Amino acid sequence: MKARVTVMPKAGVLDPEGKAIGHALGTLGFNGVGEVRTGKIIELELTETDPAAARAQAEEMARKLLANTVIESFRVELA
Amino acid sequence: MKARVTVMPKAGVLDPEGKAIGHALGTLGFNGVGEVRTGKIIELELTETDPAAARAQAEEMARKLLANTVIESFRVELA
Repeated sequence: MKARVTVMPKAGVLDPEGKAIGHALGTLGFNGVGEVRTGKIIELELTETDPAAARAQAEEMARKLLANTVIESFRVELA
Repeated sequence: MKARVTVMPKAGVLDPEGKAIGHALGTLGFNGVGEVRTGKIIELELTETDPAAARAQAEEMARKLLANTVIESFRVELA
């Protein structure tokens, strides 16, 4: 089954890429844009078919490799 | 309102970061991992309060700046 891991910077952590995007949107004429935050999505095709086991496996992958849990939080969705 | 733009490489487009993650997961002992694809999330705080207008604005931002529509597809969700 498919697991989607979403990794976002934690609140309070600087996000220079988001800042740059916000600035660029202003330059392009988009008004009314407040805070911009950027994150990553990792979509994994897992052979595991049990949803609970697949979720546990994806969460372990996130903790060990996909996210830096000091500054980033992650969320796992199954599809 | 908040808009979340998800940008993923189109099917058939090479994703070397995904390949590297898949390889690293194997090295860490995770078995049963098939294809890995990576993408970006951009969360935007918009002052626009009408959902249809906010969606249209976020889609225009995606087409003009956030996504390279030649090789990437995007999806807008409102929250």
